[in-house]
Amino acid sequence: MTADRKFEELGLTLPPPPKPLGVYKPFLQIQNQVYVSGHGTVQEDGSLIIGQIETDMDIEAGKAAAKQVGLAILATLFDNLGTLNRIERVVKVLGMVNAAPGFEKHPYVINGCSELFAEIWGEEKGVGVRSAVGMGTLPDNIPVEIEAMFLLKA
Amino acid sequence: MTADRKFEELGLTLPPPPKPLGVYKPFLQIQNQVYVSGHGTVQEDGSLIIGQIETDMDIEAGKAAAKQVGLAILATLFDNLGTLNRIERVVKVLGMVNAAPGFEKHPYVINGCSELFAEIWGEEKGVGVRSAVGMGTLPDNIPVEIEAMFLLKA
Amino acid sequence: MTADRKFEELGLTLPPPPKPLGVYKPFLQIQNQVYVSGHGTVQEDGSLIIGQIETDMDIEAGKAAAKQVGLAILATLFDNLGTLNRIERVVKVLGMVNAAPGFEKHPYVINGCSELFAEIWGEEKGVGVRSAVGMGTLPDNIPVEIEAMFLLKA
Repeated sequence: MTADRKFEELGLTLPPPPKPLGVYKPFLQIQNQVYVSGHGTVQEDGSLIIGQIETDMDIEAGKAAAKQVGLAILATLFDNLGTLNRIERVVKVLGMVNAAPGFEKHPYVINGCSELFAEIWGEEKGVGVRSAVGMGTLPDNIPVEIEAMFLLKA
Repeated sequence: MTADRKFEELGLTLPPPPKPLGVYKPFLQIQNQVYVSGHGTVQEDGSLIIGQIETDMDIEAGKAAAKQVGLAILATLFDNLGTLNRIERVVKVLGMVNAAPGFEKHPYVINGCSELFAEIWGEEKGVGVRSAVGMGTLPDNIPVEIEAMFLLKA
Repeated sequence: MTADRKFEELGLTLPPPPKPLGVYKPFLQIQNQVYVSGHGTVQEDGSLIIGQIETDMDIEAGKAAAKQVGLAILATLFDNLGTLNRIERVVKVLGMVNAAPGFEKHPYVINGCSELFAEIWGEEKGVGVRSAVGMGTLPDNIPVEIEAMFLLKA
């Protein structure tokens, strides 16, 4: 099953592809490598999920926020490539979490995005290397920001 | 207009290319990719801009500090390549901000560096993907640290 | 002297290669590039070195923790490549430190890993670009997490 077909089957709704909040491109292709800027928690209506994990929302809401970031990344990929089928594989994910002091469950939170990618592209090609870490602060006080790198099919 | 000519026209003064503060190289070229280590706020006299944004300096001073980091990166590029003209494009910038709890304007701060790169290499080739995020702490309590990747001309 | 011979000569003991704590691969090879996920402070018995630098341990213990992360990365390389000799060079290290507010010596801490890599692959090929920065929090409250990229021999 293709990634686009899988996406359709999951019945997911994409947010609008996020516009840059500064002087950067959301997406850049260099030969067969695709780089995606740090994406935030953009929702269908364009608004952001806001708040710090364990201060303003629980860990399940944090994981759902990470899935929403994953959807924003998919929106950027669709917007620039026209299809998810051109992605050969996920290479690298940097999952940045905005959580209260003492938080320890960053991998669980970022799985919200990683499980989405694994569903779309499969357990092998949808899963790459990753770091899931806690930041001091994030833009607009969003709970999660994720940047990623993908490989395109030849 | 070439990047070097543009740099000259802007009348900017470079700091000395920063020496490593540890066991790393400031610059590494792998085929046509250039990786630049996390750079700090090195000034012309070699001293660092120090302090946390919104604790010790306002956001405009933070943005100016990010521009200074951009100048330090240019100094490293000149030191290793001899010219900015060999850069084909900016690929990726990771902008790391040291700000007070609750800070939300990381993209504005990192624009201090990104606007410089856009002036030097143009709105298309001087602008790549980016994440702009808040750290817990930074070396020497500098307000901004930035690492970057560039593509060289064939 | 080969990297494996050097490793043997140093008399180091590796921890077990860390298992993923989430939906990611510890290691991914794309052509001649090797990406390694954020690794933690895994010890020989599989337990983690836990605690924040300058809160729960001093800076020397933090540097030793970074060396332990380096050993965990070597374990992952051995597990996936069978040998350290296939590594052409260290390209990039992202050293993430969990330290008390006001901490300033991240490069010193991350040298614990970088000096290990320099011993294994030499002062030139064992040393790449690097950022060494302070996070807000890290998974399981480990003091250091490090992700890295390597180049393989042709």
